[in-house]
Amino acid sequence: MLRIRWELLLMAIICWHRGHTDNHEAKQSLGHVTVVVVGGTGDLARKYLWQGFFQLYADEVGKGHTFSFYGGGLSPNENGTTLLFGILKELACPPELSAERCALVKDQFLHLSQYHQLKTSEDYEKLSQKIKEQVGQEGMVEAGRLFYLSVPAFAYADIAEKINNTCRPPPDTWLRVVLEKPFGHDFASAQSLDKKLSGQLKEEEMYRIDHYLGKQVVSKILPFRKENKKLLDPIWNKHHIERIEIVLKETLDSKGRIQFYDQYGVIRDVLQNHLTEVMTLMLMNLPANLSNSKEILQNKLNFLASLQHVDNSNAVIGQYQAYNGEVQEELNKTKDYFSLTPTFAGVLIHVDNAQYEGIPIFMTSGKALDERVAYARVIFKSDVFCVQDLNNVQCKSKQIIFYLGHGNLQYPAILVSKNLFKPDLVSSGDWKEVTEYKDVDVLGLPLSDYYIQSPVVPREAYCELISHVFFGRKDRFISAEGLLASWAFWTPLLESLTQVFPRVYPGGVANGNLLNFKLRGHQVAFSHEAVVNVINPGAEDNFQVMQGKYRSSEMVSAWAQELVDRLASDLLLAAEEAIREEGQFHLALSGGSSPVALLRALALNLYTFPWRNTHIWQVDERCVPHTESGSNFRSIHDLLLQHIRIPYFNIHPMPVHLTQRLCVEEDGGPTLYEKEIKKHVNASSFHYILLGVGHDGHTASLFQDTKLESDEERLVTLTESPIKPHQRMSLTFTAINRARRVGVLIMGKNKHELVSQLSRIKGESSKYPITKVQPKSGTLIWYIDYDALLG
Amino acid sequence: MLRIRWELLLMAIICWHRGHTDNHEAKQSLGHVTVVVVGGTGDLARKYLWQGFFQLYADEVGKGHTFSFYGGGLSPNENGTTLLFGILKELACPPELSAERCALVKDQFLHLSQYHQLKTSEDYEKLSQKIKEQVGQEGMVEAGRLFYLSVPAFAYADIAEKINNTCRPPPDTWLRVVLEKPFGHDFASAQSLDKKLSGQLKEEEMYRIDHYLGKQVVSKILPFRKENKKLLDPIWNKHHIERIEIVLKETLDSKGRIQFYDQYGVIRDVLQNHLTEVMTLMLMNLPANLSNSKEILQNKLNFLASLQHVDNSNAVIGQYQAYNGEVQEELNKTKDYFSLTPTFAGVLIHVDNAQYEGIPIFMTSGKALDERVAYARVIFKSDVFCVQDLNNVQCKSKQIIFYLGHGNLQYPAILVSKNLFKPDLVSSGDWKEVTEYKDVDVLGLPLSDYYIQSPVVPREAYCELISHVFFGRKDRFISAEGLLASWAFWTPLLESLTQVFPRVYPGGVANGNLLNFKLRGHQVAFSHEAVVNVINPGAEDNFQVMQGKYRSSEMVSAWAQELVDRLASDLLLAAEEAIREEGQFHLALSGGSSPVALLRALALNLYTFPWRNTHIWQVDERCVPHTESGSNFRSIHDLLLQHIRIPYFNIHPMPVHLTQRLCVEEDGGPTLYEKEIKKHVNASSFHYILLGVGHDGHTASLFQDTKLESDEERLVTLTESPIKPHQRMSLTFTAINRARRVGVLIMGKNKHELVSQLSRIKGESSKYPITKVQPKSGTLIWYIDYDALLG
Repeated sequence: MLRIRWELLLMAIICWHRGHTDNHEAKQSLGHVTVVVVGGTGDLARKYLWQGFFQLYADEVGKGHTFSFYGGGLSPNENGTTLLFGILKELACPPELSAERCALVKDQFLHLSQYHQLKTSEDYEKLSQKIKEQVGQEGMVEAGRLFYLSVPAFAYADIAEKINNTCRPPPDTWLRVVLEKPFGHDFASAQSLDKKLSGQLKEEEMYRIDHYLGKQVVSKILPFRKENKKLLDPIWNKHHIERIEIVLKETLDSKGRIQFYDQYGVIRDVLQNHLTEVMTLMLMNLPANLSNSKEILQNKLNFLASLQHVDNSNAVIGQYQAYNGEVQEELNKTKDYFSLTPTFAGVLIHVDNAQYEGIPIFMTSGKALDERVAYARVIFKSDVFCVQDLNNVQCKSKQIIFYLGHGNLQYPAILVSKNLFKPDLVSSGDWKEVTEYKDVDVLGLPLSDYYIQSPVVPREAYCELISHVFFGRKDRFISAEGLLASWAFWTPLLESLTQVFPRVYPGGVANGNLLNFKLRGHQVAFSHEAVVNVINPGAEDNFQVMQGKYRSSEMVSAWAQELVDRLASDLLLAAEEAIREEGQFHLALSGGSSPVALLRALALNLYTFPWRNTHIWQVDERCVPHTESGSNFRSIHDLLLQHIRIPYFNIHPMPVHLTQRLCVEEDGGPTLYEKEIKKHVNASSFHYILLGVGHDGHTASLFQDTKLESDEERLVTLTESPIKPHQRMSLTFTAINRARRVGVLIMGKNKHELVSQLSRIKGESSKYPITKVQPKSGTLIWYIDYDALLG
Repeated sequence: MLRIRWELLLMAIICWHRGHTDNHEAKQSLGHVTVVVVGGTGDLARKYLWQGFFQLYADEVGKGHTFSFYGGGLSPNENGTTLLFGILKELACPPELSAERCALVKDQFLHLSQYHQLKTSEDYEKLSQKIKEQVGQEGMVEAGRLFYLSVPAFAYADIAEKINNTCRPPPDTWLRVVLEKPFGHDFASAQSLDKKLSGQLKEEEMYRIDHYLGKQVVSKILPFRKENKKLLDPIWNKHHIERIEIVLKETLDSKGRIQFYDQYGVIRDVLQNHLTEVMTLMLMNLPANLSNSKEILQNKLNFLASLQHVDNSNAVIGQYQAYNGEVQEELNKTKDYFSLTPTFAGVLIHVDNAQYEGIPIFMTSGKALDERVAYARVIFKSDVFCVQDLNNVQCKSKQIIFYLGHGNLQYPAILVSKNLFKPDLVSSGDWKEVTEYKDVDVLGLPLSDYYIQSPVVPREAYCELISHVFFGRKDRFISAEGLLASWAFWTPLLESLTQVFPRVYPGGVANGNLLNFKLRGHQVAFSHEAVVNVINPGAEDNFQVMQGKYRSSEMVSAWAQELVDRLASDLLLAAEEAIREEGQFHLALSGGSSPVALLRALALNLYTFPWRNTHIWQVDERCVPHTESGSNFRSIHDLLLQHIRIPYFNIHPMPVHLTQRLCVEEDGGPTLYEKEIKKHVNASSFHYILLGVGHDGHTASLFQDTKLESDEERLVTLTESPIKPHQRMSLTFTAINRARRVGVLIMGKNKHELVSQLSRIKGESSKYPITKVQPKSGTLIWYIDYDALLG
């Protein structure tokens, strides 16, 4: 497992428990607890887990529970026992125990521990039998069984099944099974793993570890936010935060671990889990009650759901130069094999809610970088105007740093710029204020410019987490829903990266500025031209716009993004012209999939669009309530209206839902909409109507079979679509052909066939309703992307 | 006049004209131009004006116009002539002329110039007569007359009248009258001056000078934006701009000019005119055509109209320590006289449009500061994430500086950070790229980190402006509308400052950080506690909230702002609770003036308000279209909805305008609203209804005389108000008393009487409809500010 390698390099930190009282009085019996470490003689168990359970025992002995500990493994009992006791003998004493006391406790612990082979179902059954007998003999009652699965993830389902079938504790006692990442490698596999596990174990029985949640600084994030709520509330938002950075830099490479690493890469290894957890804790709504696991989990889910879609346009990836050779060697590949696995990633994340929208969140991690350091920081906008005395501390940058360790500071801490506020330190005695300042800079400021809080004694994450399992603190673990939500966020990026070549970097200080990256709107790109020659399948200089004729009208063609940008910019020109002349711009928008990218571009890129003087109308609508996801208005609302400042009065949804009925003739929806058009739109002549075309050649909601009323003057009508939902409301050709400008947007390879056919038809064809779009005195422009034009 | 003193200290810069060609050929006669400098022997004329007219003559002689120049003044002709020729003899040669040629041109210029006493109407009449005779004698035709009023502003109206009555040029020729600030000292006085002047002169005849518009860098702002439009468009907006600073720092004091200065102060002297012009040029919509004066003026007006209201909460003011002594001395005041005139001001300005909203604009100017410098700069957000190599230029700050002069750079220039872009330099030959870098820092970056453009030859502002008058470039001058728009913006601040004590500062470097100021939301305050003891009438520590009982219900009382904040925060709690329980929060808001501050607080301060799950309803509405300014919905829209991200579907305006009629019984508006309430609101029981109370004790639109229908179940009704507009729609007491929570907000001294009366009434009183608010199972809370409670 990845984490082992990473953790092995931490200094060995002795477990030590807060609030420990050396209480010898025997309490009322709370029942017997059985701990089973499956993979109990492996690396992780040796290094951290037994130390954690020893600490747990030392903390809890004499408080009412009795314990027994099993190390389980594939080896036969004889070999296993030797291995296990080899490990247990080396356990270190918790610092709060005297040597004498420790010797005693350790003796007891060894006495209560044994090895048990766990290979077959029978092995588990035997174990269960053994536990029952022991408990029965000693006249005890079982409290619960704790299984720690320190084995590769592929074995989880099988072990879970065995536990479920043969090793469950008696009713009314608890079962807790601890698992560790990887939990799948994308949404589907995580879901499938979850399905398998949840067939055997209940959600409340599973404790999925992210060991970052056991790190002291990480578990302090919520309490810190709570303790300083009054000071943070006014500034913890888009108005004050300039950017957020969540960073894990490593100097190490992946050598020796390629077998694992090459399947995962840095995004699955670090970003999807550890860094996402840190981001979530920083930005989720603060729960009213910090010990309410349910509320915390729900707030986490809400936060993850509010993240904006991320794909390869929002990320840069790299791979250290030596990596591919390591892959060839460790995976026995030939010299022409090239792995696309990223060892570096920089991702730009945005939160789509009113509190944080627009704040860039930079999440970055990489191997073979110049420095080892991990931190998450919030950088605030400067809110001071310094007329003089610019070196005053008030004039310096403001930030809050959750510093996980290493780097210049070398110890975990929370740092708050002195010009921001002095943080409260209200929690019990396990955090202290640091007032001795080493002469170092931390992230741009001298250490003395910060208020610093740090744990009194550094504690190891696994110790913490083992204690949390014992006390059933589910919020310190990953829920199934949380896991899937995180994968749901990361999977589109991972999928969009499968064919992307990472930028190759030399490693260490030699990387120079090669991995620095910059924003372009909501997208990112490396800020420095690649020097190392990287295979680049994209042809950026092909981004040209072509102009020509199509069906005797003007046509603009380009690659999709460029085309959409051009259309958006043409709309802006049309809007400005209309507003100059009439003070208002009347724009009618179609539904369907074509305008999605356009609406996004209008919402996010065209800052100067004069929305205050623009009226938004609908070309067509499905007869469903406007709030439903199938509604065209809903999609215009979510993609565009939600993001811009347009007066409420300028929005004109089609009235498909009158008197709580959908498109009933007698309700006169079309007539009502006509009246509204006539009231606002000069000569009922829209300044711009944006249309799409369906595969069958329909446009608006005017289909091949649509029979329009004989009244040529009707602007709006009810129609029937061949596909569901059948009922529609639509502008008529009369209304469309009265417009000053009509733009038809056609995109995608799957429209190529249609584009070819239409080009061969002269004038109108009853088979293709789009051919009836012929503005009387206005202009028709076709916007066709290269995919649709050239196939 | 103030400006003289400031200008006198500029280095004497010789006028020199672009595109000057030394053309001796006589052109076809374009007619005779008469220039009259009223106040022609004064300081300004001596220092700048005659030099400017000499340059104009040198530029234009031989191009078709003939000229004569009059210096006008109060002295009799004999004395005046001596004075004038004393000035004219000292005129410097334009550098592009050879000494020989200059001697010739200067000779001609002196020959064409004469003094003419201008005191009485007769003097003006005589002048006119003289011009006519001269033109007639020489067989010429008049082209126009240019009057430059270099006299105190109080004389403008009188002189304008004399010109109009006795000295107008013949029909079909032009009259141009040049005026200079101060143009009034607030909106009303500017309007009154304008009224007087416009009775005598047409708007197109008046050329109001702001000499900043003649500064080379200032007049380059629009061309720079145009030339670099493609590069600026993507970044010239709230998404990329972090802040804007417009700064004029002086080391000088006002000694010797107190007579003038003490009436004006720094805001009227510098901010209202010069710095506002600079800001406008930076942020106004770029005109399509840079030589279209009309479009430029209109865009300026649009920009000024989009500025958010500014008052003393958005400004800090100071006064240098020696100032008051100077006032006592120069104005013959006693030792206990204290002037409140600010010599320093820092103002925070926000633009209320989609492009710039949220960007803090710091406008600052002061006398007796540590340094002399003037600049306007746009600081961009960092858009780079630097993984390594943090000293790389890409990782440094990004800005564009319009540098007006002095400071470290010492010359006027436009500077663009090299990591931003290389600006175009497309204009003719009068600007050059500077590539020699002095070893200095300019505003945080070494000079070598900038691309620098600078004028080839520094030109004096008055030269430029005199040429613009001659060529009729009205956009280089202040229009009446523009002037009033600027005063309309600044007057509320000036009025709110009349009782504010400026912070006293020692002057020079000793000011330290005393004048630095910081943001608090949209407000500003000095960032450093005052050391100098300043009289402070405000009692900030009185900001306490009191809780008690009123009319047997809970009451919260505090000073207005604190009360509103408390109510907003209570609303947030209620919203969170409702959403936790039901997923939605239904809030009904009243119209009227009481909720204005509350709506502002909700819009601007409560970032975490869960608007996405909040539904907004109306308590009452006037029967006017929703778009009209009297509409309650309109005010809710403009104050709140416009600023938040709330789904369109969650907004529920009262249907007072159905089938294009206002509140007609048959249209069934109340029934419709009732249906909508019943559809969305559980048991028609709003989570929160916010009410106000009128002086007459009415609440919602339920008045003393309102007769409610006998049907107790009706939730909405039409009513009649005793004041206009009479027709109203309102929730009934039935609807109100069903709510879970009802808050009644009462603020202001003028409600004190009512608050006292109501406190004496037990239970209901038909005289005071508010007494009928008695929620059945919900809670009633009174929010009464100290003014209303204590009178």
